[in-house]
Amino acid sequence: MELRNDILLRALQRQSVDRTPVWIMRQAGRYLPEYLATRAEAGSFMNLCQTPELACEVTLQPLRRFDLDAAIIFSDILTIPDAMGLNLYFVSGEGPKFEHPLRSAGDIKNLPRPDIGESLGYVMDAVSLTRRELGGKVPLIGFSGSPWTLATYMIEGGSSKTFSRAKKLLYQDPELAHQLLGKLADTVTDYLNAQIEAGAQAVQIFDTWGGALSSQAYKEFSLRYMTQIVSGLKRENEGRPVPVILFSKSCSTQLEALADTGCDALGVDWTTDLATARKYVEDKVALQGNLDPATLRESPEVIRQGVADTLASYGTGPGHVFNLGHGITPDIDPEHLGVLVDAVHELSPQYHL
Amino acid sequence: MELRNDILLRALQRQSVDRTPVWIMRQAGRYLPEYLATRAEAGSFMNLCQTPELACEVTLQPLRRFDLDAAIIFSDILTIPDAMGLNLYFVSGEGPKFEHPLRSAGDIKNLPRPDIGESLGYVMDAVSLTRRELGGKVPLIGFSGSPWTLATYMIEGGSSKTFSRAKKLLYQDPELAHQLLGKLADTVTDYLNAQIEAGAQAVQIFDTWGGALSSQAYKEFSLRYMTQIVSGLKRENEGRPVPVILFSKSCSTQLEALADTGCDALGVDWTTDLATARKYVEDKVALQGNLDPATLRESPEVIRQGVADTLASYGTGPGHVFNLGHGITPDIDPEHLGVLVDAVHELSPQYHL
Repeated sequence: MELRNDILLRALQRQSVDRTPVWIMRQAGRYLPEYLATRAEAGSFMNLCQTPELACEVTLQPLRRFDLDAAIIFSDILTIPDAMGLNLYFVSGEGPKFEHPLRSAGDIKNLPRPDIGESLGYVMDAVSLTRRELGGKVPLIGFSGSPWTLATYMIEGGSSKTFSRAKKLLYQDPELAHQLLGKLADTVTDYLNAQIEAGAQAVQIFDTWGGALSSQAYKEFSLRYMTQIVSGLKRENEGRPVPVILFSKSCSTQLEALADTGCDALGVDWTTDLATARKYVEDKVALQGNLDPATLRESPEVIRQGVADTLASYGTGPGHVFNLGHGITPDIDPEHLGVLVDAVHELSPQYHL
Repeated sequence: MELRNDILLRALQRQSVDRTPVWIMRQAGRYLPEYLATRAEAGSFMNLCQTPELACEVTLQPLRRFDLDAAIIFSDILTIPDAMGLNLYFVSGEGPKFEHPLRSAGDIKNLPRPDIGESLGYVMDAVSLTRRELGGKVPLIGFSGSPWTLATYMIEGGSSKTFSRAKKLLYQDPELAHQLLGKLADTVTDYLNAQIEAGAQAVQIFDTWGGALSSQAYKEFSLRYMTQIVSGLKRENEGRPVPVILFSKSCSTQLEALADTGCDALGVDWTTDLATARKYVEDKVALQGNLDPATLRESPEVIRQGVADTLASYGTGPGHVFNLGHGITPDIDPEHLGVLVDAVHELSPQYHL
């Protein structure tokens, strides 16, 4: 099936396009009433992730409403630790939890490298099904958490504010930390390659908690493993390059180092303007971002102005993918996202003359 | 009374020193059993802040244990909104709250510019008393929250994760936001000048929530007002310059802009290494920081290594003040802070040859 809209893939490779492509982190999510309906039908969040027909359905929902340039497969970053035997579950209002968090050196040493096809086959089934259903309309993005970000949840047993257990491991037993992160990097590589083989046309690694680390610890315990993953990925499929996007939140001063990992594009959070980010990376990679998600709570005029400012901040030339600086939040009126998407369509062509 | 240890003041002005000065954000705080005892004696946190003898006592406590190069007056950043009539109170485990948060345009328009001597005289009394008690041992630092950071608490009514009300004001009614921030900037200027007149020998502005804003909003709603304050401060007292330190947390990509405000020094959080930060600011200002506070949970060897890495990251030459990248947390063993301070004394002279 021919891909009819390839501007996301072209922009990620810094090739010329007619206008700036746009997709939104968490575009398939709780701000959409149709998502909430499917989520209710699924019974549990895990069942939604693990039932390919339902995951495909929610992946496609935002594309029915908005003129987006990509789909991103609906899943959760914590499917990998779940497949490693930690047993993911969700407590309403408390976020993700693991039945068996990593509590000892033995827990880390005994952690299996899961057979991706067997334990995470439901994700690959959702990817293939969604590719079929998309019928070449837009490309499908696959994703994973970064090893460091996955490790924080696995060690803390869920979300954390201080990451004290996870940091303790890095500082007290760096060798054991490297053992864990190495296993995770291998597994993430397998997982993303399986998504690519199943049909993902670009992949993104979410390093949500990179910003918890000092610069030195970030390089040793997060960046290093993302670099390893990037070099292990199948970078071409179906005769076409598969671009790789890295998104380390709250790590803007690492953009320069991230640009040297061999990835194609970097996500940028809203605290750094794209002009500064572009200066840091010297146009070595494409940039994705970075409107403050809070802007979507405002009036259409304010949203349009935010889009205009973001486009102007990147400026002319190829290599910009429009997105928020972080995921869309559940309290947003879907019509406001429509305003954003329309504004990108309308205001961005002038930057691609 | 002659100041016998002036290396903090010298380093903040990028003058040569024999070793790197060290003080610690929240050095007078809950990790010290003697603080908890005085806090219990005070009955309430507000009473501790408002009783000069008790505030002086807890300010001096860390200096009895550790060879620190500065005292910082014990107080809270929210004394200003309290003095403006919002009535600060604390709910155990929930952080600060206001009885009368800002809920309407009228609330903002009617906000008084408080008479600092009258409503915040207790802070100035604590400063004078502490200066006397210090007897020239080390300099005393005064401080305030930044206008934007104060505004978030005043609008949200307490702490916030998303700052949705505060951001709504910036986006929906920027003129009203500027009115509020302008009033706060005037009040902060008065407040810091009063602290300087009462004896504060350096001042720091804490912009704890600068990182919640987009780069553009940061410049318009936070940086601008800190610049205004810096230019309104009494920069000399008792025949000696009074250095000004700005600390915008999670704003490392703004360091370059912050260096142009006219301040003397910038706080740096732990996500940016000091070598990078120094490159950004081109040695225009001194830098203060930036060990990850989590390091203090670790063994003496790990703490010493963290100190060594931080010193090496800044490198040779004047202009470094050792500190954490954020405040010390209540769970830290005081002896671990002793290890840090001793390590700075021992390892830093080689960078000042």
